Amino acid sequence: MQEYKIYIGGEFSKTGGKLEVLNPFDNSIVAETCLAGKNELETAIEKALSVQSEMRDLPLYKRYGILMQIARQLEEKSNKLALILALEAGKPFKYAMGEIKRAIQVFTIAAEESKRLPKEYISIDWTAAGDKKEGLVKYFPVGLIAGIAPFNFPLNLAAHKIAPAIASGNPIIIKPARLTPLSVLELAKIIDQTELPKGAFSVLPMDREAGNQLVTDERFNMLSFTGSPNVGWQMKANAGKKKVALELGGNAGVIVSDQSDLELAVKKCLVGGYAYSGQVCIHVQRIIVHEKVFDKFVERFITETKKLKFGAPDDEATDISVMIDETNAKRVETWVDEAVNDGAAILYGGKRKGAYFEPTIITNTKREMKVCALEIFGPVVTIEKFSHFSQAIDMINDSEYGLQAGVFTKFISEMNQSFNEIEAGGVIINDVPTFRVDHMPYGGIKNSGFGREGVKYAIQEMMEPRLLIKNTNY
Amino acid sequence: MQEYKIYIGGEFSKTGGKLEVLNPFDNSIVAETCLAGKNELETAIEKALSVQSEMRDLPLYKRYGILMQIARQLEEKSNKLALILALEAGKPFKYAMGEIKRAIQVFTIAAEESKRLPKEYISIDWTAAGDKKEGLVKYFPVGLIAGIAPFNFPLNLAAHKIAPAIASGNPIIIKPARLTPLSVLELAKIIDQTELPKGAFSVLPMDREAGNQLVTDERFNMLSFTGSPNVGWQMKANAGKKKVALELGGNAGVIVSDQSDLELAVKKCLVGGYAYSGQVCIHVQRIIVHEKVFDKFVERFITETKKLKFGAPDDEATDISVMIDETNAKRVETWVDEAVNDGAAILYGGKRKGAYFEPTIITNTKREMKVCALEIFGPVVTIEKFSHFSQAIDMINDSEYGLQAGVFTKFISEMNQSFNEIEAGGVIINDVPTFRVDHMPYGGIKNSGFGREGVKYAIQEMMEPRLLIKNTNY
Amino acid sequence: MQEYKIYIGGEFSKTGGKLEVLNPFDNSIVAETCLAGKNELETAIEKALSVQSEMRDLPLYKRYGILMQIARQLEEKSNKLALILALEAGKPFKYAMGEIKRAIQVFTIAAEESKRLPKEYISIDWTAAGDKKEGLVKYFPVGLIAGIAPFNFPLNLAAHKIAPAIASGNPIIIKPARLTPLSVLELAKIIDQTELPKGAFSVLPMDREAGNQLVTDERFNMLSFTGSPNVGWQMKANAGKKKVALELGGNAGVIVSDQSDLELAVKKCLVGGYAYSGQVCIHVQRIIVHEKVFDKFVERFITETKKLKFGAPDDEATDISVMIDETNAKRVETWVDEAVNDGAAILYGGKRKGAYFEPTIITNTKREMKVCALEIFGPVVTIEKFSHFSQAIDMINDSEYGLQAGVFTKFISEMNQSFNEIEAGGVIINDVPTFRVDHMPYGGIKNSGFGREGVKYAIQEMMEPRLLIKNTNY
Amino acid sequence: MQEYKIYIGGEFSKTGGKLEVLNPFDNSIVAETCLAGKNELETAIEKALSVQSEMRDLPLYKRYGILMQIARQLEEKSNKLALILALEAGKPFKYAMGEIKRAIQVFTIAAEESKRLPKEYISIDWTAAGDKKEGLVKYFPVGLIAGIAPFNFPLNLAAHKIAPAIASGNPIIIKPARLTPLSVLELAKIIDQTELPKGAFSVLPMDREAGNQLVTDERFNMLSFTGSPNVGWQMKANAGKKKVALELGGNAGVIVSDQSDLELAVKKCLVGGYAYSGQVCIHVQRIIVHEKVFDKFVERFITETKKLKFGAPDDEATDISVMIDETNAKRVETWVDEAVNDGAAILYGGKRKGAYFEPTIITNTKREMKVCALEIFGPVVTIEKFSHFSQAIDMINDSEYGLQAGVFTKFISEMNQSFNEIEAGGVIINDVPTFRVDHMPYGGIKNSGFGREGVKYAIQEMMEPRLLIKNTNY
Repeated sequence: MQEYKIYIGGEFSKTGGKLEVLNPFDNSIVAETCLAGKNELETAIEKALSVQSEMRDLPLYKRYGILMQIARQLEEKSNKLALILALEAGKPFKYAMGEIKRAIQVFTIAAEESKRLPKEYISIDWTAAGDKKEGLVKYFPVGLIAGIAPFNFPLNLAAHKIAPAIASGNPIIIKPARLTPLSVLELAKIIDQTELPKGAFSVLPMDREAGNQLVTDERFNMLSFTGSPNVGWQMKANAGKKKVALELGGNAGVIVSDQSDLELAVKKCLVGGYAYSGQVCIHVQRIIVHEKVFDKFVERFITETKKLKFGAPDDEATDISVMIDETNAKRVETWVDEAVNDGAAILYGGKRKGAYFEPTIITNTKREMKVCALEIFGPVVTIEKFSHFSQAIDMINDSEYGLQAGVFTKFISEMNQSFNEIEAGGVIINDVPTFRVDHMPYGGIKNSGFGREGVKYAIQEMMEPRLLIKNTNY
Repeated sequence: MQEYKIYIGGEFSKTGGKLEVLNPFDNSIVAETCLAGKNELETAIEKALSVQSEMRDLPLYKRYGILMQIARQLEEKSNKLALILALEAGKPFKYAMGEIKRAIQVFTIAAEESKRLPKEYISIDWTAAGDKKEGLVKYFPVGLIAGIAPFNFPLNLAAHKIAPAIASGNPIIIKPARLTPLSVLELAKIIDQTELPKGAFSVLPMDREAGNQLVTDERFNMLSFTGSPNVGWQMKANAGKKKVALELGGNAGVIVSDQSDLELAVKKCLVGGYAYSGQVCIHVQRIIVHEKVFDKFVERFITETKKLKFGAPDDEATDISVMIDETNAKRVETWVDEAVNDGAAILYGGKRKGAYFEPTIITNTKREMKVCALEIFGPVVTIEKFSHFSQAIDMINDSEYGLQAGVFTKFISEMNQSFNEIEAGGVIINDVPTFRVDHMPYGGIKNSGFGREGVKYAIQEMMEPRLLIKNTNY
Repeated sequence: MQEYKIYIGGEFSKTGGKLEVLNPFDNSIVAETCLAGKNELETAIEKALSVQSEMRDLPLYKRYGILMQIARQLEEKSNKLALILALEAGKPFKYAMGEIKRAIQVFTIAAEESKRLPKEYISIDWTAAGDKKEGLVKYFPVGLIAGIAPFNFPLNLAAHKIAPAIASGNPIIIKPARLTPLSVLELAKIIDQTELPKGAFSVLPMDREAGNQLVTDERFNMLSFTGSPNVGWQMKANAGKKKVALELGGNAGVIVSDQSDLELAVKKCLVGGYAYSGQVCIHVQRIIVHEKVFDKFVERFITETKKLKFGAPDDEATDISVMIDETNAKRVETWVDEAVNDGAAILYGGKRKGAYFEPTIITNTKREMKVCALEIFGPVVTIEKFSHFSQAIDMINDSEYGLQAGVFTKFISEMNQSFNEIEAGGVIINDVPTFRVDHMPYGGIKNSGFGREGVKYAIQEMMEPRLLIKNTNY
Repeated sequence: MQEYKIYIGGEFSKTGGKLEVLNPFDNSIVAETCLAGKNELETAIEKALSVQSEMRDLPLYKRYGILMQIARQLEEKSNKLALILALEAGKPFKYAMGEIKRAIQVFTIAAEESKRLPKEYISIDWTAAGDKKEGLVKYFPVGLIAGIAPFNFPLNLAAHKIAPAIASGNPIIIKPARLTPLSVLELAKIIDQTELPKGAFSVLPMDREAGNQLVTDERFNMLSFTGSPNVGWQMKANAGKKKVALELGGNAGVIVSDQSDLELAVKKCLVGGYAYSGQVCIHVQRIIVHEKVFDKFVERFITETKKLKFGAPDDEATDISVMIDETNAKRVETWVDEAVNDGAAILYGGKRKGAYFEPTIITNTKREMKVCALEIFGPVVTIEKFSHFSQAIDMINDSEYGLQAGVFTKFISEMNQSFNEIEAGGVIINDVPTFRVDHMPYGGIKNSGFGREGVKYAIQEMMEPRLLIKNTNY
């Protein structure tokens, strides 16, 4: 069996805490690695702090070189990496490969952005008090960053923390999800070959105590967390003086107007609803269709859902596979059952086998049902109808969350109204909320998050402005 | 009779060349002023050059103070100025007042932009060759500017050269149109009261020889011309090493889609077609209407056109008055007659009385008729129909000109297609091409111009970047 | 005696909780006002929430109009306001007038920035996944803001919260310091006369319970606090999901290089050290002088310190007056005494009379003495010497705080090193850290704060980006 | 002998006009290619126009892919290309390799910038006239570009036109210098392998008539010329309506202050003065040294100059080789002789052998001597002394040219004064004017040029803004 050392302060090491990584599809052991405790974390922190000023002063062409080397290595090893990712996360291979491609993008964009860090040159003589003075604003790295990544995009959501950290000149310690540490440990092997100062990057699967220290230890100047809302908001309260970025989830909705391309809407909702069994922060959970086209949409959507091919994650033909574990599948089952008991109707699917939950379509839901109100993080969509566009927007906004929303429409006015009134970090016209490219600003409002990722935006959050005021004469 | 001295290098002076300014409505003399010749221009140039470095070094709070003082004085004197403008240009009072209000905006915006001149702070260490270096880009005033303004917006189109010149720290010499020098000479009185260094601003109505020197004299570093295409392009060829900005005319078109707010289109086209008798660079000359709504549009447009009230320019109730002179009215008459002889049909108007030409609507035109192909600069619109949206865009683009275009539509796709494919400096959705606010980038492509105005954009054209490369270590 | 109603949700009202405002110079009553409790705060919150969407949709020309009207009214009433401010805060009149002038600037700049809110137009087709898509990023108001202002700049530090809130379209509730509520209540009278929707702005001096609710109530989307570090950081922990901006204090230092303009340094340090008895966040607390010029500097600095004129705050000739209250003067006395007991030497001053503490110069201090390590917020400066420039920077950085620092030098290399290595939000070359103009980014790192003010920067913190992704074809 | 076809509208073709390319070192034939005439140019133009809209619509990821592929291919073939370049231009191999490396940078940067084309999203409601409207500014490709490149950087100065043209979506026809067409024809082979639409790029060595058509033909929307001032300015007059960018030469100067790193100055001036025998637009022609360090500088500079190793261009050890041809070497000889006859003194060098001119140092020059006043474009520097810094700046500015200048100093005040007062496109502190990295804005004022290159800046000049105004409500 393959063994993975963890990456502590620039060295691959073993610890006493064994961690087995299982394939969710058949519970076979994919590989074995280990957990870091307080001591290993301390080592990583100290190494990171010791290279902080070296990182700050790293010339841009070196940052660029390091980041591009990572991107190219990811490209070379993409098949191998996609397979590891498929196995540890139970993610169908074609989606796993998509994730690798996006991670390549993330490092490439970060390489480019490292040469374009924010810098301002401002005039100061707006009043006589500032006569013969001018200002420069340079953005300095914020300091040591703790990055906590989730199981659902184990490589790319870690990349969204690592790549900006390197680009902005910050050391970073990454805690992957316990279930899925392997792909990011593979990334560590790649990064270890670059000229990145040793200690600037660590990957530590952790026990609870060490994990908690990422939040509370004041030597970290920033905490970047991607995960569930409850955990995230609690971290914000405990984070002390550090900056906090939270990428949490939601119950993203789609509006399908009567004047829209219905086939496009069906095709996109299929991916948004079922990709990786809906274990995606911007999974399409609520589809809201104009009453004029409701029946047609439902019929077409069921037809297409039926065509999805179940299989093992490492099979390239697989469209949908198991969920991350049986616990989660059972949770989804319970929520669906509750909804049905409370009056909802299943249009398709609804059944569980082990960790597999069928692609499922529900209607006649009520807003307070868990399948509507909470983040389902499973292959379940609800479909409801609306009469007026404003009503559809109200339905979208009737949520604690606000990450992204999708709107299918041909009308300028509906596009404008959606942009002005939908309470979310992003509104996607003629596509699903699941749409994300890696350079766009991404993040939620309301309970869905705090701050923005998307390489340039993450870099900005990882830096602090410093103003220089100087004379223009002497 | 009132006499106006001209403003030469910071002093109000008289010259030998008398210039009478007539009211186009009744040919009464509005006031008397004088023409500058070679000598007066020489004085103005020398004074301007002598304060060039003082202007360059003028602190921003002083530029702001000067520009805001001008704006406030224009506001205080707006009634008087609007009247002078109405009389010298034959412009209906309500439009004259609109022009004053816009000039106030231009100086206000320039005051604000003077504090926000472009400045860049860039990293240089993208390769090892640039290690430990960084760059600052500061924009310096280009140098002495010649501004040539037309008769149709005698105050505001001069303001679009003067205000950015002051904001950017450049001296400027303005040549107003001979027919309409008064409002800008009133402006000179206001500016003379500010702390602007004397000599940094001159207003010189000129004879032909002196006017030509604005183009050829190499001491001018920039020529900013607003006027007719033929004159403008010839100037570019003769301008030597100086920068040239040309704001020329066009034969602006409007598309009215079958899916659009027809009443809005009618209302807007009425203003765009007939305001100031169409003597506007972005006058609505060609209206292109979807065949499904053509008849309805035409009927409503004729109905509204009939309601326009003819009168003296200084009458607040007047909608439409005489053209700038009888020569121009006769030119328009000839073009319309030619079109009719060549098969076009007059739907409304078409007659001339002295310098007055009726609001006129023509249809059945051909692309090569002067009323279509050239800039009519009179109160004449053509209306034609189209079947497919792409055809409408082709009709708009079938022109030597490309200033602005208007599109009335409710569809995202038609908006997108218009933006991507209409060859013009600006595309106005659900409004006429005549739409302009003073901070937006404004200018034409093809034969319609060269460069952009709109305060911030004009400022940019009036400045030259200078790069400082410095070390970051020693 | 004058009575001030407080401004609750757009209405001037009285409450049961009487609040007397005293002149710190003679403890005479300046005026009487009242305290808001839980109920009044509830009213203010509800009114604010009810106009939230109206504020969001307020056209920019209206925001501009409101903000400029406030600026002009402040200008008209500046003498009266400066007097009130002098009396409530014990601030020498000339500094009080300076604060009014800066508040005028703040509203003027906010008016201008309201027209320049951040907006991005980005390409999305960096990969095939984004083909034929593009993005718009619009910044929306974050929501209801709680602003807590300190006693030392009662008007201008409130203005730095109010003006950006209006510019960005957010309602705001301001809690002034209990000691100094009058000038901001005067501001409320001015704002009440504008077209700002009633309820969008409230001024509530509060009791402790209500004050605490500003921090914890989740209906506030942002808390902007200016005050002491301990209070501020505790607020961050209790703030729940809201954004937090903290402008805290520091123990700002100045470096005087051997190659510098010594007279300039003396003159600037005099103001930085003693203006408003050092009750300024960026008060010059630690002066670090090159050993070659140390004696000369000290001699000149003492000489100039002696010339400062003590007097009543409302006397225009007064340079220095009492501190805000005797408690604070006694605290400063204790810290100075402790330092002396621990080996420090007083070079000048050091004595207290009632609430007055003399301008005081200390040397031979140690880093852990309170006069060095904590924020003294009194008219006390320490002067120490250094040999090498790197040592001076280390001394500056040897602090929990990092707000601003000043460096007097003629060398490019020392300027560069200061910018790269001084851990502070701002580094002021050839001026004191006390330098601030109101449009520059301002704020501390380390324990000195979180986030940035300076109108444009405060506006940015008060807004949330929302991304629109749209097609470019259909 | 190797034969090169030329690249006409996407096809490699031969024409009747034979062109032999000689090695300037020994007049051996390097290769043979051919000249395009009117017919071939017509073909290239027509092909270019036929793909104009395809180029405009090319998705950014494709532009990026094409440009990165070019960069990588240049890297792979860099040795071969450097050799060709050394032979055709007589450029010492190490400088030829440096040029290849820079060309790789140019394409890499252009790839990155293609994803960051300028785009603006602006508010329009600054007055009631703009209520409920907003604007988008998208930059569209200007249209067909003519690029004329010089012999001295045959690959990289062509790359500075080609790469931005591709990034901005414009077709381009390149005319290389007749003496040095080979390296850019090699580039054509690389580009031909990419997915760039055939016809979007042509390389045509031309006869005079065809060359002239690049200037006058109105189907070209832009002319980008790098070459000599006289030719360039004449082109501007003949260019009709098209945009013109001129990168011309100068007589760049360096100031060496008494407070500066003298060894650094010597080392940098050596490269700036003699690299590629001074046939560089920003060659160090005039060195101005403070009188206190003049003798020392001169002695050290002569010592170092003596060490330069003469040799064949393809020898890696060669520091200096022949000039481009004997005609030019004779011209330099004549200018130097004239200077000597007029009182100047040769401190080192001054002799010619065939096309080789020795590295030469002259002093006691007068401003009107050709070696001072004109662009020498040969391995000759003049050294003069100054007393006050302002005098040095006057000496730099006493020139018709203004491309770049260098200043060696340790003082902030001298850096500031240089930036404010030196009339040039760039001021390089502690380095020579010869400093250039490929992303920085580069270009001259006065007679030295018109417009800016540097990838991002060239892209901007190759695009036209188009404004879309749209409603925000319906």
